[in-house]
Amino acid sequence: MPLPEKVRLVEVGPRDGLQNESNPISVADKVRLVDELSATGLSYIEVGSFVSPKWVPQMAGSGDVFANIQRNDKVTYAALTPNFRGFEDALAAGVREVAVFASASEAFSQRNINCSINESLERFAPIMEAARLHGMQVRGYVSCVLGCPYDGKVAPAQVAAVANELLAMGCYEISLGDTIGVGTPTKTRELFDVVAGRIARGKLAGHFHDTYGQALANIYASLLEGIHVFDSSVAGLGGCPYAKGASGNVASEDVLYMLDGLGIETGVDLDRLINAGQRICQVLGKTNGSRVAKARLSA
Amino acid sequence: MPLPEKVRLVEVGPRDGLQNESNPISVADKVRLVDELSATGLSYIEVGSFVSPKWVPQMAGSGDVFANIQRNDKVTYAALTPNFRGFEDALAAGVREVAVFASASEAFSQRNINCSINESLERFAPIMEAARLHGMQVRGYVSCVLGCPYDGKVAPAQVAAVANELLAMGCYEISLGDTIGVGTPTKTRELFDVVAGRIARGKLAGHFHDTYGQALANIYASLLEGIHVFDSSVAGLGGCPYAKGASGNVASEDVLYMLDGLGIETGVDLDRLINAGQRICQVLGKTNGSRVAKARLSA
Repeated sequence: MPLPEKVRLVEVGPRDGLQNESNPISVADKVRLVDELSATGLSYIEVGSFVSPKWVPQMAGSGDVFANIQRNDKVTYAALTPNFRGFEDALAAGVREVAVFASASEAFSQRNINCSINESLERFAPIMEAARLHGMQVRGYVSCVLGCPYDGKVAPAQVAAVANELLAMGCYEISLGDTIGVGTPTKTRELFDVVAGRIARGKLAGHFHDTYGQALANIYASLLEGIHVFDSSVAGLGGCPYAKGASGNVASEDVLYMLDGLGIETGVDLDRLINAGQRICQVLGKTNGSRVAKARLSA
Repeated sequence: MPLPEKVRLVEVGPRDGLQNESNPISVADKVRLVDELSATGLSYIEVGSFVSPKWVPQMAGSGDVFANIQRNDKVTYAALTPNFRGFEDALAAGVREVAVFASASEAFSQRNINCSINESLERFAPIMEAARLHGMQVRGYVSCVLGCPYDGKVAPAQVAAVANELLAMGCYEISLGDTIGVGTPTKTRELFDVVAGRIARGKLAGHFHDTYGQALANIYASLLEGIHVFDSSVAGLGGCPYAKGASGNVASEDVLYMLDGLGIETGVDLDRLINAGQRICQVLGKTNGSRVAKARLSA
């Protein structure tokens, strides 16, 4: 299969990234980050999550962030809505696209959100219905697609089954997440090969973590399988909740550097992305998690 | 082309790695590192370099290192010998395999070793002849194979020409080095495709730097091209001399994690490798450059 000519990058730094940083930051700093990301040419930014600030203080004020960002017509600004209450809050905040997530591992589902995979899917039913009535698109995440911190191995057929449920419920795209970063290229290819037996490749996205440094190799392997949508996090924001100090989300800059080198069009400007990432790292007081940013900024 | 069943890892940490660390360490610490690496199952370790300590103080005492390591019959202990004087010193120190290096870029050759590519090859002629008379194998490095810090692009045909010269002079294997880490997978595959037009794939090795995070993706791309020997540096020792604070040599642990995941046999034990890398990082007082080590040690 030839490599895709174009790739869509889904920037998850302001949500998946900041949610896993220990220090909550101000609404103003979040707004600035989203605005700077909007100016890079990214077409999709996950801006925040509508959850109880008691559980996830880092995501407090997501409604205010949506109210204050400068919207660019070419950019989709999405929010994660783990339950119907969150969906209603998102709707009230003017959100026009939401995301839901399920796990491919029963053990992870129970430990992470206190319910079975099927129960989690049932919770999404009212969100899917309301989204449809409001003409909103819903993106689906499946986590632990290449391994689970509690169960170990996860069968590709199980991933395909959960992804298929989300698609059947109305999601337009399913992002398959290697939540703990244990995947390697052949397993990644086998996963997409199995899932693509049930779901068109064009409806699938890859979400890789760099905990063991494998993310770019896995993205290249996914490209060879015809996948053309990838999630990433500017400056590698997020870290790994299962190994303190380890890397989490793959850095958007590093993904973009590879895609640029492969001659694949993304529409995203690397220099602007590096600047947006470096500024938010200064706000957080942390080292930039992008190797490309480190090399460019120190050259 | 199917992936290779076995890969040989060439551990360059004690030489290429330590040579680029700012703090010289003691002979005893170097000996301990080499001995710990010998116990991991690695079959090839580049132990040191025979150069003037005025120019490269980090490599001072390489002869003493060779004199004090515990030799394992299954391991090749090699030394870099940039000139004939170095070769004679290596010989006197009981070294049984040496390496020489040339650049694929004229500008880099001039700036790095003050002579043209051809002049550098001429300098190796007496080394090659003496090595042959002593029944010693010589490994060849070609640097800047995917880009030069001064000249920018480097043509694959130029890399093939220099590699072919080294092979013709008597080297048994040529390691192609992406010295500044700018390569991406398609360019890596094109490079090996061109070079393999002149040199059997079994005589080629890949030497990747992780400055832009691309090393594992490039190694996976190389495996798809049938390359089965890779250089790497435990704990990512070395850094990048062209971008202070940026990554240099790809970390051996991260390469091994990928190869293990791909089901490719190396004979190397990951836990022992992680322990050897972490100990030398403590000696150097630096953060471990291996993502695998960071994740495993913090889990």
